[in-house]
Amino acid sequence: MELTVVGSVALDTVETPLGKNVEGLGGAATFFSLAAANYVPVHMVACVGQDFPDEHVSLLKSKQINLEGLEVMEGNTFRWAGRYHQDMNNRDTLDTQLNVFEQFHPKLPAAAQQAPFLFLANIHPALQLEVLEQSKATFKGLDTMNLWIESELDQLKKVLAQVDALIINDSEVELLTGERNLMKGARAIEKMGPRTVVIKKGEHGCLLVQGEQIFIVPAFLLEEVVDPTGAGDSFAGGFMGYLAQLGDTSFDSLKKAIVHGTVVASFTCEKFGPDQVAAITEQDIARRFELFKQMTAF
Amino acid sequence: MELTVVGSVALDTVETPLGKNVEGLGGAATFFSLAAANYVPVHMVACVGQDFPDEHVSLLKSKQINLEGLEVMEGNTFRWAGRYHQDMNNRDTLDTQLNVFEQFHPKLPAAAQQAPFLFLANIHPALQLEVLEQSKATFKGLDTMNLWIESELDQLKKVLAQVDALIINDSEVELLTGERNLMKGARAIEKMGPRTVVIKKGEHGCLLVQGEQIFIVPAFLLEEVVDPTGAGDSFAGGFMGYLAQLGDTSFDSLKKAIVHGTVVASFTCEKFGPDQVAAITEQDIARRFELFKQMTAF
Repeated sequence: MELTVVGSVALDTVETPLGKNVEGLGGAATFFSLAAANYVPVHMVACVGQDFPDEHVSLLKSKQINLEGLEVMEGNTFRWAGRYHQDMNNRDTLDTQLNVFEQFHPKLPAAAQQAPFLFLANIHPALQLEVLEQSKATFKGLDTMNLWIESELDQLKKVLAQVDALIINDSEVELLTGERNLMKGARAIEKMGPRTVVIKKGEHGCLLVQGEQIFIVPAFLLEEVVDPTGAGDSFAGGFMGYLAQLGDTSFDSLKKAIVHGTVVASFTCEKFGPDQVAAITEQDIARRFELFKQMTAF
Repeated sequence: MELTVVGSVALDTVETPLGKNVEGLGGAATFFSLAAANYVPVHMVACVGQDFPDEHVSLLKSKQINLEGLEVMEGNTFRWAGRYHQDMNNRDTLDTQLNVFEQFHPKLPAAAQQAPFLFLANIHPALQLEVLEQSKATFKGLDTMNLWIESELDQLKKVLAQVDALIINDSEVELLTGERNLMKGARAIEKMGPRTVVIKKGEHGCLLVQGEQIFIVPAFLLEEVVDPTGAGDSFAGGFMGYLAQLGDTSFDSLKKAIVHGTVVASFTCEKFGPDQVAAITEQDIARRFELFKQMTAF
């Protein structure tokens, strides 16, 4: 089944203890689409400026991502710059230039509206509401961030009431629910709307909760993390992509989708930017899925 | 097969966000023995002072722990006081009184010497070396702490060269090896002696490495952690106890032992002190083992 994602496309300048990548391709919709494109046809709805390099468009097209909904607007592309701490678990934002993103209102082409699976990547909740009005999707996933939880909670709650699954960081769970314990936090989120709650713990793996059903999984173990930027978005892309491929969202499928998200995210961390997640094949994913199974089964 | 542990018995004063426990039964050998006693006969080698309450002796005896090696020395029992932070992942030591522990030299009774499984809980490496000279064990496990890594590295390395498995915290791995990445840290530890490396990540689970074989497991998910004191020692007790019960240390058995350690440690966190780990039965462990399997299998 087809899958639509709405979110940011950016030019990222990233410093990690292993190097620096200046104005590389970034953005939540980018990482999500490249990850999900390993599973199903993806419609990307986003905006870029007139300065957006052709090579990035080519990369997205090389993975058969449908760019009908990628609006080229007057002005410059959204830019983000950040520096990771020595431990790679924390980062400081050094610069944010919204540019064309400031005027963006997502317009879903007909095919993107019809896609049965929709992912609302991290953008302003008001825009996410505009997308929900246009989409005919039957399974809707959502990401958000601390900024919207703190400044746009009312609108975010309207979005939450309309989605099937929330994918959220552990620190954001506490911010959103006031609960430090992740199980209690998941329960509180379920009451806000989403039947399925996925809590990401970065290098410590993640947690899937749906009523009484619980699934916990560690992260894939890498000997070297080069750049974790986009790992969360790639995780979401692998998760939603796998579900859309199956056309099924039973708890058993959700569990496998979590592992696919975990595996795809691990590739993203191996190089700067989306190069690695763009380069992998179905076979690479299948091989690492089996390896991960061996590393966790008892 | 029988199992010997050498370590501390203490009176612990613990504050957590959920309450305070004054001079409760504590110490690494205590938590380890109570956990391991669910699997095999345990010989506890430790020391207490003349002030050590009879009720604690009764509790240990109620789990058939062999106390022939528990020396009652002139003076007071070792005391430790600590306070956990709001997030339960960190704690401050408020007070340490070594008391009788200052003069302690472990003497293993004949039966404790013959036990095929030995665990060196966290005590001074010089004492651990004394134990190794007395023991006839064929599988030896080791715990240590930041203090000995920083101040007694030469003696600790002599211990490491003689043991089969090291159980260590993630933060101690970096201190011991200089490696921030856990896989690289495990490789460095293998070169120091132990064929098997178990890295504990607290609420984030743990990692088992033996050459090319890797096993990663999350922690059991609790809705409420009352007191994590002794969780690591209970983990080691469940791990070593299960291995001793099987009399087998193949990688497949090590993986299951890690899960037993995980399960037993989760009980410890549910109440102050060792009450919960002392109260559980084989059936409680088996039930939670199955639940954990359900929560992690895909």
